[in-house]
Amino acid sequence: MYQPPRGTRDFLPEEMNKRNWVLDRIREVFEAYGFEPLGTPAFESWELLKVKSGADVINQIYYFKDKSERELGLRFEWTASLARVVATHRELLMPFKRYAIGPVWRYENPSEKRFREFWQADADIVGVKEPIADAEVLSTAVDCLRHLGFAGFVIKLNDRRILEALIQSIGMPTDQVLDIIRAVDKLEKIGRDGVIDELSKLSIDKHATVKLLDVLSLSGSPNDVLNRVEDFFKDIPKGVKGCEALRAIVDYAKSFGYGEYLVVELSLARGLDYYTGPVFEVSAKGYEDYGSIAGGGRYDEIIGLFGGDTTPATGISLGIERLVPLLELKGGFEKAKLGIDVLVAPISNNMRSEAIAISKELRDARIPTLLDLLSRRLSKQLEYASKKLVRKVVIVGERELSEGYVILRDMKTGEQVKVKRSELLTHLRN
Amino acid sequence: MYQPPRGTRDFLPEEMNKRNWVLDRIREVFEAYGFEPLGTPAFESWELLKVKSGADVINQIYYFKDKSERELGLRFEWTASLARVVATHRELLMPFKRYAIGPVWRYENPSEKRFREFWQADADIVGVKEPIADAEVLSTAVDCLRHLGFAGFVIKLNDRRILEALIQSIGMPTDQVLDIIRAVDKLEKIGRDGVIDELSKLSIDKHATVKLLDVLSLSGSPNDVLNRVEDFFKDIPKGVKGCEALRAIVDYAKSFGYGEYLVVELSLARGLDYYTGPVFEVSAKGYEDYGSIAGGGRYDEIIGLFGGDTTPATGISLGIERLVPLLELKGGFEKAKLGIDVLVAPISNNMRSEAIAISKELRDARIPTLLDLLSRRLSKQLEYASKKLVRKVVIVGERELSEGYVILRDMKTGEQVKVKRSELLTHLRN
Repeated sequence: MYQPPRGTRDFLPEEMNKRNWVLDRIREVFEAYGFEPLGTPAFESWELLKVKSGADVINQIYYFKDKSERELGLRFEWTASLARVVATHRELLMPFKRYAIGPVWRYENPSEKRFREFWQADADIVGVKEPIADAEVLSTAVDCLRHLGFAGFVIKLNDRRILEALIQSIGMPTDQVLDIIRAVDKLEKIGRDGVIDELSKLSIDKHATVKLLDVLSLSGSPNDVLNRVEDFFKDIPKGVKGCEALRAIVDYAKSFGYGEYLVVELSLARGLDYYTGPVFEVSAKGYEDYGSIAGGGRYDEIIGLFGGDTTPATGISLGIERLVPLLELKGGFEKAKLGIDVLVAPISNNMRSEAIAISKELRDARIPTLLDLLSRRLSKQLEYASKKLVRKVVIVGERELSEGYVILRDMKTGEQVKVKRSELLTHLRN
Repeated sequence: MYQPPRGTRDFLPEEMNKRNWVLDRIREVFEAYGFEPLGTPAFESWELLKVKSGADVINQIYYFKDKSERELGLRFEWTASLARVVATHRELLMPFKRYAIGPVWRYENPSEKRFREFWQADADIVGVKEPIADAEVLSTAVDCLRHLGFAGFVIKLNDRRILEALIQSIGMPTDQVLDIIRAVDKLEKIGRDGVIDELSKLSIDKHATVKLLDVLSLSGSPNDVLNRVEDFFKDIPKGVKGCEALRAIVDYAKSFGYGEYLVVELSLARGLDYYTGPVFEVSAKGYEDYGSIAGGGRYDEIIGLFGGDTTPATGISLGIERLVPLLELKGGFEKAKLGIDVLVAPISNNMRSEAIAISKELRDARIPTLLDLLSRRLSKQLEYASKKLVRKVVIVGERELSEGYVILRDMKTGEQVKVKRSELLTHLRN
């Protein structure tokens, strides 16, 4: 038997309805925030994909050649394509706010939580260097999650420049900043000793690492942490700028309505090499162990790298493969109205054309409606309706119809009522 | 500068909003008909893709190996994945009605109308061998087109079995049926002489070809054509069955409400080898030259080929790359409400947190709302709003706000009115 390729999945309707419900809610919020859709191809030139990616990511790209030996790769995230479009379309009005929702592909080791085809929903703002844009993309993600039924959050916030300034102020080698950040990024996964080990392999002095880790573990209110960390690098401008940016975000967050959830977490780095300023991760309160369900940051240099004018940009990505099972876990789909509303069930073949006419009427009113196609006995039709979780069955019988009526059966209660044929649509709408 | 790979395109927001509007309308109708979404991967095993495809199609598949030397290919249509799912998931309740909307990929010679990445919207019914299922998928496509604003149609109808029976009754070699059907399928493109030429290359007698083409050119009302063609093969059961199926579809079409648009076109074959019964193509009345915008047919053997039980199936596919430019041509997007409703414009930085609060309120009500992020002067903000085709601008000024008001500017008329801050949302909703 043929299976979906390793690391990919089929989504049968029950699961797919839930996924679509999530995607629709996210899209509603993205559009409410004035983000507009941008369409880009599923594959890009290999050359383009390479520009932006660290070696670890490059190895995960699905690479292939087309029949003209053109080197291509499946997109592994949305940002490279966005940056290409902005770099080439100089006519785009700034700020440019775009969203993209769809699958990306990475050749990773598949596991219960990790897939080779997975969906991301991204919202990015291009052309704004001020932190209000970072605050707005964060607000967008938070409101998506609220719309999906989440109520409390933990939003971790940091700035790449703070990390860099700290590394510099401690006297660690500045040409190894990215390596150090990558090691620090694993703190939660491998622990203090793990980070010390990893950095000692890079010939970094253990005392320096311990000092760095001590600073990174500072905790308290956002402004408190920022004031204390700023003492370490008063004379390093980029560090000060990082603190200023985070203070501004904390301030805007109050107006946007998510200020209470912010935490400055100095060890947050977010793996990707391309971040240049604020970085952030969102998890759901009470489900922090589950990990982050949205994350992003500022990347002011990519568009320039792709041949465009230097253009600031910031964005956030919601992980659909995280969100769907988490919603499942917390019962978040219970209020979602999924599936089929009505089955129209003729009790004999004579009633078929009337059943078609009734289904046509309901479908024109966009009420999800099935019509029996197999000339089944009524009991079989009801069995099908029950298994399909259909909510109501319209039974079309000869005698009732001749009197101008149909029978409406509630599949949950089993209750049946006679409804005037001419009033069926109004009845079902209520 | 980096470009999208040859044969693929970027869709900037203006274009993408139109595409999404089309996809949303189609999905609404698919769901109204009780089709449910099925998710399958963008790529499938090469072995699977090969099973179902003629040599011409196989050459168009994007083939690649993953890092474990697994042979894969990008999907080139939706049916193979559907057939795989049905063949492997024997627990699926029949009839199984599924839709799929998304990109497929073919390595074709790109032209103005032909792309290497293009979108298809498919609705299929699995598990019903009776023609009512063919009639229902046709009805689905017609209602999608109506929902998109089309009013009249030309629906060409044929049955593969009629073609096969004709070929047999004329005494043409039955082991070349598929070759003959493929040549006939080109009739519109290469003309009578072209078909005669092509078949003579296959050593098929010219007189037989002429006779076949004469029969195929029969025209008249559907039942008239069917009665006359049936005379040719009264003793060939599959031909008779083909005629019966089409008569049934013609009959059901009246109840579904598209009977008047049906034409039996005996030369219609639809290239794909896998059709086994009725085939159909829909074009828009007045735009017939534009070609078909939806097409499909019955394929009762594929699921069995994929290792499942023999399972009847029929489906229809709407071609998005045809629909979008045709709608553009006929002005079909004029009534679509696309783009951004509101820009919230603070006239100074002091007004910013109030502007954020106002935008938050509108966004929570899911009104697409932009917020100025660049601390621009009001004139610049209005210029941006005008270029973005924003409909209304909420001007947040210090003096008005202190009195409990904001100014609402209609960007089309330039008219400005004072609106109570507390009544802004209600006002904008109307």
